Amino acid sequence: MAESVRGPRERMVFSAAQLIRRDGVTATGMREVAAHAGAPRGSLQHYFPGGKEQLVGEAVEWAGRYAGKRATRYLAELAEPSPSLLFAAMVRQWTDEFEAVGFGGGCPVAAATVDCSDSTESVRAAAAAAFGRWASSVAAALVALGFPPSRAAALATLMISAIEGALVLSRAHHSTAPLVAVDRELGPFLDAEWAALA
Amino acid sequence: MAESVRGPRERMVFSAAQLIRRDGVTATGMREVAAHAGAPRGSLQHYFPGGKEQLVGEAVEWAGRYAGKRATRYLAELAEPSPSLLFAAMVRQWTDEFEAVGFGGGCPVAAATVDCSDSTESVRAAAAAAFGRWASSVAAALVALGFPPSRAAALATLMISAIEGALVLSRAHHSTAPLVAVDRELGPFLDAEWAALA
Repeated sequence: MAESVRGPRERMVFSAAQLIRRDGVTATGMREVAAHAGAPRGSLQHYFPGGKEQLVGEAVEWAGRYAGKRATRYLAELAEPSPSLLFAAMVRQWTDEFEAVGFGGGCPVAAATVDCSDSTESVRAAAAAAFGRWASSVAAALVALGFPPSRAAALATLMISAIEGALVLSRAHHSTAPLVAVDRELGPFLDAEWAALA
Repeated sequence: MAESVRGPRERMVFSAAQLIRRDGVTATGMREVAAHAGAPRGSLQHYFPGGKEQLVGEAVEWAGRYAGKRATRYLAELAEPSPSLLFAAMVRQWTDEFEAVGFGGGCPVAAATVDCSDSTESVRAAAAAAFGRWASSVAAALVALGFPPSRAAALATLMISAIEGALVLSRAHHSTAPLVAVDRELGPFLDAEWAALA
């Protein structure tokens, strides 16, 4: 989840997402976010008058936009697009990261949901919007491949659910095996459903 | 995740699991666990000399045993067992809970992984053991249905991953729709793989 982030406001949102996906929301302090972003502590108050709740919400929104754009790009980059190759690219983003830098960070939207969905309504709503944005993007890719919209939405939910769950299992096991297993099992299923459309 | 728990030690482990699955590990305090369990604060020190880390680890282990036993029981309770009916029973545990008491609590093992896998090695190891126990139980059920062990293990990983991810999506959306979608899509796939074994 590295990307070039320019302004101080964007850097703080990005830093919040990075810390949340490593330690969860509750353990992530505003002071730590400012330090990670190389920003003065006071600038957090300036940019995020709603405090930590606002910052967490924006970090979650950022992650949803990021995941959505990624899914669109994966489809565009496939020379011979298929549902299994789209799913494999989504999984590979995570296996690549875990192999490169370890299992320190998961999905910030999942972390925000686990930590805050019962206690902080604005964060829950931001997480729902972020998952919705990601799912819409994956569903749109499936529609572009020929799936009818309602089926595309259901399969997008399955793909995202399987990845989110396998991410948690992979972090717990310190192994990419759960992600690899999910890719190997779901890929052929997705392609078979695609072939059955014709 | 209600079950009768008798002794004060068991009550505290159960209470810890309940609070962790609602608010995550970091937001769950020892004092709160004691209050939830109706136990004096001092008894936590007595039963859990390793403090919060020990209590969280035991709560996670308890959840793994609980999920494993449930999967075994679901298979035993099916009049005409099939992989899709096993999976549907696993999903229904969660849709029933969400419909009965709302979306306040998710999976404590996922919460422990998200909050602690990078910071607290003993909790990560407990989460890995808990997921492993659950997966072994689901895989054993699939082996009983006729799947070869290695395939059963991969499918168990997919089933658990899909449920764990759909749980997070369902909590974020305050809707059981993600769990329902995952059940509808994966059930026929599992049965088709089962039929292909014959």
